[in-house]
Amino acid sequence: MQTKPRLTLIKVGGKIVEEESSLNRLLDDFSTIEGYKVLVHGGGRSATKIASQLGIESRMIDGRRITDAETLKVVTMVYGGLVNKNITAGLQARSINALGLTGADMDIIRSVKRSVKEVDYGFVGDVSKVDISFLTELIRKDVVPVVAPLTHDGKGNMLNTNADTIAGEIAKALSVFFDVTLIYCFEKKGVLRDSTNDDSVIPQIMRADFEQYVTEGIIQGGMIPKLQNAFDAIEAGVSEVIITLASAINSGGGTRIVQPEN
Amino acid sequence: MQTKPRLTLIKVGGKIVEEESSLNRLLDDFSTIEGYKVLVHGGGRSATKIASQLGIESRMIDGRRITDAETLKVVTMVYGGLVNKNITAGLQARSINALGLTGADMDIIRSVKRSVKEVDYGFVGDVSKVDISFLTELIRKDVVPVVAPLTHDGKGNMLNTNADTIAGEIAKALSVFFDVTLIYCFEKKGVLRDSTNDDSVIPQIMRADFEQYVTEGIIQGGMIPKLQNAFDAIEAGVSEVIITLASAINSGGGTRIVQPEN
Repeated sequence: MQTKPRLTLIKVGGKIVEEESSLNRLLDDFSTIEGYKVLVHGGGRSATKIASQLGIESRMIDGRRITDAETLKVVTMVYGGLVNKNITAGLQARSINALGLTGADMDIIRSVKRSVKEVDYGFVGDVSKVDISFLTELIRKDVVPVVAPLTHDGKGNMLNTNADTIAGEIAKALSVFFDVTLIYCFEKKGVLRDSTNDDSVIPQIMRADFEQYVTEGIIQGGMIPKLQNAFDAIEAGVSEVIITLASAINSGGGTRIVQPEN
Repeated sequence: MQTKPRLTLIKVGGKIVEEESSLNRLLDDFSTIEGYKVLVHGGGRSATKIASQLGIESRMIDGRRITDAETLKVVTMVYGGLVNKNITAGLQARSINALGLTGADMDIIRSVKRSVKEVDYGFVGDVSKVDISFLTELIRKDVVPVVAPLTHDGKGNMLNTNADTIAGEIAKALSVFFDVTLIYCFEKKGVLRDSTNDDSVIPQIMRADFEQYVTEGIIQGGMIPKLQNAFDAIEAGVSEVIITLASAINSGGGTRIVQPEN
């Protein structure tokens, strides 16, 4: 029995959304997707560029940005303002009624400032609560929520939060009411069996395969947390997760992460 | 007969919202206002500061910013991101459910790029359409809309738009459903009879007085368009407009702009 309406949640990174031509292509493709839709965006490259112009050095550990007070201002400006509003205006121009959001807006995503262990990530938030009542209401009115990778702590502070994580958390929460496909846009055609061969896409991965690939060193680096997010989402009720090129969100290609049939 | 619910719309400028202490004071005061509320903010000083740090010169004519493509990015970042989200998070911390918006979000405010006459203002928008259906729905759920001085042209472009104008346009549109008091926060206690005496506040002005004061040179400069906005609002159905200090939004002081009794 499957009576939930279909919803596609696209997560797209900074490289796509910061260039006008690739953003326009993405928004054109996005606008042709049928059913309910949500867009979660990054913006890291623009943030790094603006930070650099402001004389703020960007420090990354394992692909995560160290967010001091000045960097928090930059990401709040770039993700919540520049990138989010350009996407929103671009969707409106395509007759898609969009609403740009951060976690602070309508209190949709609260987070807790990451505690300092080996690394002090600064003003980085780990998601503690997603309230989907407002999102669900918007979606059912055919509004497209456009979500920036920013959350808040409920004490007046914005926090920088990984966009893949936000996409995964929203997808999980929405899966109560919707049949959710989560698409992570990626700079390759999918998860590659051979990193030197762009056409060696692994079409489908289950958790057992994933663990095997990691052991064999076929899957490594930043792909490991990305796939971990994907399996968490699948195991929490998301119907499927796809990792593919931004230019291929409508193509049916890429790597599918699926739950084994029971 | 007066059955419309009360709504207070506060417009506050960049000087108040860019300093943490004055912003906190404002949000504390704002949170004690009873009835429905809307906040419209500026951010010009922060925009000028960030622009300067990015090596972009801020050019103003009659207090209006010349907005070239690079400046548009700065104001979209600063107004739509930094200022808007700090206010929104600050209201959430005070248990006020706030939603940050620009004109592009839910298509609430469309504008037309100002045509070039004596001055080319660049990416500056003159408001062409305010859609209050979404705002009204939010307000009736006790959500506080926090509106940045940015609009969009419906063709994918954000446009810089004067915050006083946005406040006036929203106040006028909301007056159909609400008994609206529009408060323009100002750096003086109100409209002064003698610019060298901060206590010479004119407590109440009607249009006939205004024209007389302008003729006499008592009211001049940037106060003229501000009062013009105020009279436009009153004549379009807003119940009262108050010009006062941000720290006095609850005090009952300032200058009241009122419609003559019929």
